[in-house]
Amino acid sequence: MKITVIGTGMIGGAVARAARKLASVGEVVGVDNNPAHGEAALKLGLVHRLAAAVPADADIIVIATPSEIIADWVIRLRDHSGVVIDVGSVKGPIVDSVRAEAGKLPPRFVPCHPLAGSEKHGPANAPEDLFRGRLLVLTPVEETDVAAIARAQVFWADLGAVLHTMEVWEHDRILARTSHLPHLLAFAFMHGIADDELRFSGGGFKDFSRIAASSAELWWKIFELNRAPLLAALDKFEGDVQALRTALESSDEPTGLRLLAEAAVRRRKLP
Amino acid sequence: MKITVIGTGMIGGAVARAARKLASVGEVVGVDNNPAHGEAALKLGLVHRLAAAVPADADIIVIATPSEIIADWVIRLRDHSGVVIDVGSVKGPIVDSVRAEAGKLPPRFVPCHPLAGSEKHGPANAPEDLFRGRLLVLTPVEETDVAAIARAQVFWADLGAVLHTMEVWEHDRILARTSHLPHLLAFAFMHGIADDELRFSGGGFKDFSRIAASSAELWWKIFELNRAPLLAALDKFEGDVQALRTALESSDEPTGLRLLAEAAVRRRKLP
Repeated sequence: MKITVIGTGMIGGAVARAARKLASVGEVVGVDNNPAHGEAALKLGLVHRLAAAVPADADIIVIATPSEIIADWVIRLRDHSGVVIDVGSVKGPIVDSVRAEAGKLPPRFVPCHPLAGSEKHGPANAPEDLFRGRLLVLTPVEETDVAAIARAQVFWADLGAVLHTMEVWEHDRILARTSHLPHLLAFAFMHGIADDELRFSGGGFKDFSRIAASSAELWWKIFELNRAPLLAALDKFEGDVQALRTALESSDEPTGLRLLAEAAVRRRKLP
Repeated sequence: MKITVIGTGMIGGAVARAARKLASVGEVVGVDNNPAHGEAALKLGLVHRLAAAVPADADIIVIATPSEIIADWVIRLRDHSGVVIDVGSVKGPIVDSVRAEAGKLPPRFVPCHPLAGSEKHGPANAPEDLFRGRLLVLTPVEETDVAAIARAQVFWADLGAVLHTMEVWEHDRILARTSHLPHLLAFAFMHGIADDELRFSGGGFKDFSRIAASSAELWWKIFELNRAPLLAALDKFEGDVQALRTALESSDEPTGLRLLAEAAVRRRKLP
């Protein structure tokens, strides 16, 4: 099987690295318009070789570029015989853009999202076994080919991912809450800390704010792409903060304790 | 040297455990009005023995109880010959309560705060070497005895802590931002996640929300004790969220990118 990875950054590099180790994979080709990333991915042994364009005989093509140019790649590859998958954090705008441009989604394109991000980026930060045990969400649409879905599922399962299929809109609404909102809050939070206060940080601060070290460019795009679900999640959050604030301002201990305990009980359910 | 630890939970247990390993320490005594905690601390070998009251010959007495009863212990121990230190997360209300009750702070009481919390609690979760490399803030006041401060400093330094002395009010203002606010936000955040959405969480979610699994009772007390600085920190945070929301609603990419990049630059400065 021949794999091509477009975009050899942290995620694309990790897909390439993990795919190379599969017995079923003969060759992993990297395509990257950032020569520094491509060369680094080659030197690190993440890919067998680089190419200027996607080889015609690629069996699986993984689009691991920034979210805002995934749709362009899907359209460019609409007549390719391989199965095309992506790793974008927001699915709706990709599906909408492709449909607006091409009329329908190419049947061999299977929208995917591995829940395996990091605040680090670039091929040098591509972990060895990033997808093992991690959730991989597939959001195929009605025009997606069933055989293409099956092939994408086998590929991700071979990388150790746990598969889950859901609707495009449902993915974007849930990820707005579980991923995009915490990033927005962590970025905002860091504005309240002065440089000389950073040393007064324990483990709680470090973990809570880790994702604020993420790429500004990448996350601003995600926020824009998923604006409406993200703003809805933010509205809900601000209401929940207000409830805590009211309890605190009025020394309403029963309410405050209940709100904290409900949150703690839910968080402890996390596997 | 004889050490007594009052409250053998996670932090007190960790103090006892680390103190036992010091060559200069002959005995570590545990005092706990929660018999289950005391018995567990004894069984786990965190303390040499349990006692119903603080022994008269204790050289250092560590108050590791919940914050709201620290002041009571300080007053009870005001005539004890040992150096009394605490580990409370909020310093101002302890100092204020003791002064209101006793007129002034006992000179041999040195208010301390090790920045070494955890969402876990109880003696079974007391880590082996919790304070090594962690910041330990001392907030002595004008009536605090210089020799007592020196003794407290040597004790914490022996446990591997990095020492920093600051004013009581400054400690509470900074910790409101770096510790109490992220806890409040993490608790509020969990209210926006349904149980069946927990599985759609990557590493970002897990780290961001970890502290929401903390003890509701303990944290509600901290929020109440440090209410004014915490509400001020929350005001600042809400302004910063509003700035991001405005940029997002108006698709103001230059502002959005700048806000995210400033946050990321600051977070990456964290040692």
